[in-house]
Amino acid sequence: MEPRSGCPVNAAVEVLGDRWSLLVLRDVIFEDRRFFRALLTGSAEGIASNILADRLVRLVDAGLLSRGTGARGQRIRYSLTESGIQTVPVLCALGTWGLDWRPAGNGLRRRHELLRDRGPTFVEEVMDELRARHLGAPASTDKGPTPLEQLGTAAAAEVTS
Amino acid sequence: MEPRSGCPVNAAVEVLGDRWSLLVLRDVIFEDRRFFRALLTGSAEGIASNILADRLVRLVDAGLLSRGTGARGQRIRYSLTESGIQTVPVLCALGTWGLDWRPAGNGLRRRHELLRDRGPTFVEEVMDELRARHLGAPASTDKGPTPLEQLGTAAAAEVTS
Repeated sequence: MEPRSGCPVNAAVEVLGDRWSLLVLRDVIFEDRRFFRALLTGSAEGIASNILADRLVRLVDAGLLSRGTGARGQRIRYSLTESGIQTVPVLCALGTWGLDWRPAGNGLRRRHELLRDRGPTFVEEVMDELRARHLGAPASTDKGPTPLEQLGTAAAAEVTS
Repeated sequence: MEPRSGCPVNAAVEVLGDRWSLLVLRDVIFEDRRFFRALLTGSAEGIASNILADRLVRLVDAGLLSRGTGARGQRIRYSLTESGIQTVPVLCALGTWGLDWRPAGNGLRRRHELLRDRGPTFVEEVMDELRARHLGAPASTDKGPTPLEQLGTAAAAEVTS
């Protein structure tokens, strides 16, 4: 499909300018949800199954996710592609704006505060970890909790506090 | 309206996760289009007038734009609010992703290359210039073309080249 204009913002929003697509990407990225059922039952916003199915097809068609070809009867596992991983800065920019300008929620704020406060180097580390998890790139040899584990800890602390 | 979850990304996409809203903001921000007709006739993507009218109402309701109260018969002029100005980093992140991952267009790429290559300090200067234009903040006293003028020159050079 040809984009409607040559503007890179338009080119991006033709793929990403849809609320549910961005939330599905968020859950694959930050929650490591790789299967249809996990994305459906874990959705904090209660995504409907037909919408989830449609957005997964669109994200695969647009090249942001790839679809594992399991043996017959196996569940299909979705992986981020490099272009999917590079939506992390877009999600971070949206999260920062949401933190500043939307009503305070009671969940998941700490995760985005951590992303915002740790800055671009940390975001790069998150993307490297996603490359290891989804694309088979070599994992970091740093000791201690990984960037995504740190984000998970921040989110869990909030939910239980 | 209560957000569907406490996640700041969700809170943001409930307002911004709509293709046309983001494109209207882009044109107010980077093209200085402040009136309905300028937004309609200048749209590179050919926005329909009913969609433009609807999105302007939504953006005003969400507090991203304010609506000038002209005298009777005068055209209504839209201004960015501070929360509208702070969508600039979101548009920049989308533009960077579009530059890298979508087909090359023949317009407006240079503007976003400049935004990407000049980095966060330049983006802050753009936001300061918008505060002067839209919110009456004091303008920068730097000599030479302003950040938005530099972006306009980059876009014009591409269109004529």
